[in-house]
Amino acid sequence: MASLLSIFQPNKQLSSFKKQLKNVVGFTPNNIMLYKTALSHRSIREGADENNERLEFLGDAVLGSVIAHYLFRKYPYKGEGFLTEMRSKMVNRQKLNEIALKMGLKKITIYNKFDGALKTSQIFGNTLEALVGAVYLDKGYNKTQTWVEKYIILPHLFMDDLEVIDINIKNKLYGWANKNGKNVDFATIDESLENGRRLFTIAATLDGEIIAQAKAFNKKDASHLAAQIAIEKLGL
Amino acid sequence: MASLLSIFQPNKQLSSFKKQLKNVVGFTPNNIMLYKTALSHRSIREGADENNERLEFLGDAVLGSVIAHYLFRKYPYKGEGFLTEMRSKMVNRQKLNEIALKMGLKKITIYNKFDGALKTSQIFGNTLEALVGAVYLDKGYNKTQTWVEKYIILPHLFMDDLEVIDINIKNKLYGWANKNGKNVDFATIDESLENGRRLFTIAATLDGEIIAQAKAFNKKDASHLAAQIAIEKLGL
Repeated sequence: MASLLSIFQPNKQLSSFKKQLKNVVGFTPNNIMLYKTALSHRSIREGADENNERLEFLGDAVLGSVIAHYLFRKYPYKGEGFLTEMRSKMVNRQKLNEIALKMGLKKITIYNKFDGALKTSQIFGNTLEALVGAVYLDKGYNKTQTWVEKYIILPHLFMDDLEVIDINIKNKLYGWANKNGKNVDFATIDESLENGRRLFTIAATLDGEIIAQAKAFNKKDASHLAAQIAIEKLGL
Repeated sequence: MASLLSIFQPNKQLSSFKKQLKNVVGFTPNNIMLYKTALSHRSIREGADENNERLEFLGDAVLGSVIAHYLFRKYPYKGEGFLTEMRSKMVNRQKLNEIALKMGLKKITIYNKFDGALKTSQIFGNTLEALVGAVYLDKGYNKTQTWVEKYIILPHLFMDDLEVIDINIKNKLYGWANKNGKNVDFATIDESLENGRRLFTIAATLDGEIIAQAKAFNKKDASHLAAQIAIEKLGL
């Protein structure tokens, strides 16, 4: 563990971390310690005030607020239902993980690379939320808002595409199955506690066989995501 | 409907609305139209850009961010699980409705007073969220943060009390029932869609009879609230 943390210790390596961080976030951070915490996964640092889980809690809320305001401005005549749906398309766990990987967060996140379970988890999406929390504490809300729009929303979230994603994507799948004499179903195959929140894994099955699965903090989002993956796999 | 809206039309009444609003929020609003929208329930204004539902969507997110930051500062050594639990104790629907009533929002909210169903709903809590949205758009994030802390958190949310609320309040109820040869259970008695989100009503039953019920957007919160009400009713 010492060897993994030591990348921060020598001055040379600290300045190399600063450079890498600056490349990822696009600005010069003030309080570098905040970013170190934001990029430290629990598998390396167990103390609640040392790893990124508290910053993830904060960043998740700040990101939710920035996204809500963005949607509020972008769609001045749409109702609350539409705005809520769009937000869940933008900030679900899978999407955030994809964005984090595209932003290069994997290179600068400090986690236990020998823990196989982490490979399939979405720790980089969580790290991205923690990074938003760090930017917020370091630069304030207004700069965070500008940063999220410029570095997360504009390059990674294509609103026109998200808009047309079929809200009733499950119905699309059922419709296809019905036409083709197949049987599609959804089942909760796992339920675990993650920091006190229930995390559901829901599988989409085709004639009894699992064809896709997804995790989320509520069943609706999980089955929606599973349906999306199933549709991609089936090429519909 | 015209007569209900007309309270805004004559100049005298507009200035009386401004005064009442200033009394409730404690500052002089700039964009008075925002606050009118925030205080207009759908039962009076149906257009998505005229009633308070869009502002409620925005205010809910902003409030979540302000509360998250408040908890992050107040409890520097607590983990994400604790922070999440505290937040849900602070901003659940019932709590927000209570606070809104204490703040006097009922007097300045414009809703259809002849719609009996609204009496039992929690429209004032929703209005409070919309008001946070209006303050945010009118004054910016930093002033909203100060305002929420001064007018919502400090006078209405007693952190020491919230901390000691038994997280496993359901266990307390089960324990009491067990000792006294009673049978306590929880059941979902209603599930409806509210702006695209599923709203659950869960009842706590004592020997098969409903003794308390509560609504929330997830079953865990709803049963937690129902258990709390049951405990108060039973004087435990």
